[in-house]
Amino acid sequence: MSTPEIGATTLFVCVTCRTQAAEAAPPDQPRAGARLLAAIETVPAEQRAGVSVVGVECLSNCNRACTVAVTAPGKWTYVLGALDPDLHAQDVLSFAQLHQRHEAGLPAWRERPEYIRKNTVARVPALAVPR
Amino acid sequence: MSTPEIGATTLFVCVTCRTQAAEAAPPDQPRAGARLLAAIETVPAEQRAGVSVVGVECLSNCNRACTVAVTAPGKWTYVLGALDPDLHAQDVLSFAQLHQRHEAGLPAWRERPEYIRKNTVARVPALAVPR
Repeated sequence: MSTPEIGATTLFVCVTCRTQAAEAAPPDQPRAGARLLAAIETVPAEQRAGVSVVGVECLSNCNRACTVAVTAPGKWTYVLGALDPDLHAQDVLSFAQLHQRHEAGLPAWRERPEYIRKNTVARVPALAVPR
Repeated sequence: MSTPEIGATTLFVCVTCRTQAAEAAPPDQPRAGARLLAAIETVPAEQRAGVSVVGVECLSNCNRACTVAVTAPGKWTYVLGALDPDLHAQDVLSFAQLHQRHEAGLPAWRERPEYIRKNTVARVPALAVPR
């Protein structure tokens, strides 16, 4: 990319999320959230540039799982939900890279992946950074 | 309160939220989010101690409005939804004060107002603060 890096964006992935599908994974299988994390981590490295991927336990969005949060110092925070580990790893990373490249962490609406546009759970403004 | 202040907690209140009730406010009336902000600002000052209340436009949680977010530097961020301006100003402030008093912004579950426990939309970990 020719766009300069403004600073890393952190992508928190909830590893305790269970699937929303009717047939849940058996107890001895990884949870859907853990599978989403694994899917994100296996996307080619250039599509994860500038994005720090961190697994976390419970983002308290259990009824719209799977869930991730995208944030960076001095930028907006986004919570994205209803994610399928088999379908949406690429969309999540595309959104995180748009967030990373935008100074305020506000990706242009038309550039966001359509599924992310429809499944944004919430966003929170940046706190004023002390100078 | 004898508990020392660790630092202010910011309470973002979405002023563009519309009510979830079947009968929406007429166009010439303030939106539900604006009424929630007004309700919070008229709670006695001692119940808002340590909490900085900020009105914002759109927290992208429109389908579970009204919505607020509770956050502070180095602490967890919480998004709370399905709030009624006529009922929940006090609950929101109680939660914000618990967040303010807890070092990591993680109020004890049993101490949270029951309505807030049931209507937490999401939470996001703090970013590591550079030393």
